[in-house]
Amino acid sequence: MSLVLDPTAQDLLFREARTANTFTDEAVTDEQVQAIYDLVKYGPTSMNGSPLRITLVRSAEARQRLVKHLFEGNQQKTAAAPLVAILSADNEFHEHLPQLHPHFPQAKDLVWGERAFREKHAPLNAALQAAYFIIGVRAAGLAAGPMTGVDLAGVQKEFLDDDHTPLMVVNIGKPGEGAWFPRSPRLDYDQVVTTV
Amino acid sequence: MSLVLDPTAQDLLFREARTANTFTDEAVTDEQVQAIYDLVKYGPTSMNGSPLRITLVRSAEARQRLVKHLFEGNQQKTAAAPLVAILSADNEFHEHLPQLHPHFPQAKDLVWGERAFREKHAPLNAALQAAYFIIGVRAAGLAAGPMTGVDLAGVQKEFLDDDHTPLMVVNIGKPGEGAWFPRSPRLDYDQVVTTV
Repeated sequence: MSLVLDPTAQDLLFREARTANTFTDEAVTDEQVQAIYDLVKYGPTSMNGSPLRITLVRSAEARQRLVKHLFEGNQQKTAAAPLVAILSADNEFHEHLPQLHPHFPQAKDLVWGERAFREKHAPLNAALQAAYFIIGVRAAGLAAGPMTGVDLAGVQKEFLDDDHTPLMVVNIGKPGEGAWFPRSPRLDYDQVVTTV
Repeated sequence: MSLVLDPTAQDLLFREARTANTFTDEAVTDEQVQAIYDLVKYGPTSMNGSPLRITLVRSAEARQRLVKHLFEGNQQKTAAAPLVAILSADNEFHEHLPQLHPHFPQAKDLVWGERAFREKHAPLNAALQAAYFIIGVRAAGLAAGPMTGVDLAGVQKEFLDDDHTPLMVVNIGKPGEGAWFPRSPRLDYDQVVTTV
């Protein structure tokens, strides 16, 4: 009652959307990923720093290199997903501040000059954007299967560099047969929200 | 073209939604917050750990105590917002694993037994949920003003305890006069997405 978002959209993005564990063979195109990005890029981050980076794992060779860094229970679903994305935080995101925050370009050095400070904030802001991305995948009528059961240090070494902190791997596609585990319970409102 | 989400919903959640800097006097009720939570609680987290905690700052006295921990440029907007929420990560979230992950309750100790490991994952998963929450605020027809320009250590000492890592403060309400700065540019697709 208190929401203005259409119930169909509520279902698509949250209520019926689920982490898929199997997928159909239907391809996920670059056009779909571009449409997802063009929607979710507007989600807010600290000073619009936008540190999320997305590595699409498309070649069979790269897929094989990725799978070996996943915990065993996750290998099969990633091997079979139509598209897999590695989401990471760019700890040198501040280099883009003059483009992203044009009314205060000096923030690049004045606010974000220290690497240790950036390494603390970039992953948290990239995690916000990872959530926007998951919502965007669902907005495209696809299922997302985000996984942190991954040897992230191994993924970094294999696919990224010292400037990029990997956050998760996301399987993307149309849900296949037996895609869902039963929905797990959530915390009650009173377990999460307190008032002062 | 590639999205199935209704364009009105796209606008509500991403394209037209903006970080508000002023608000009307219209109250934000507990019923609205409950409706937001009941939607976004379904967003995925690692093993459904759901570490986000929300502290609603409702009393004038608590509001005053919070404002003094904000960077100067953020104080006025938080002083005037109809509702303010402190979002934090519960580093002892694993205590709820038997409720949240009933088919593998042993994960509480087997996976999440080490505090240092939880302190790494809880803020990242809570950040995912913070993003779901921001989307949920927008789904309720309200504007969110998330801020990390905050003395977070001060907020922790003032409102939380050693088990809770504060992530951000969010102003919530109907946008008021002059609520928006001009929209800042976003990164191009090719600056964010690479393919291997």
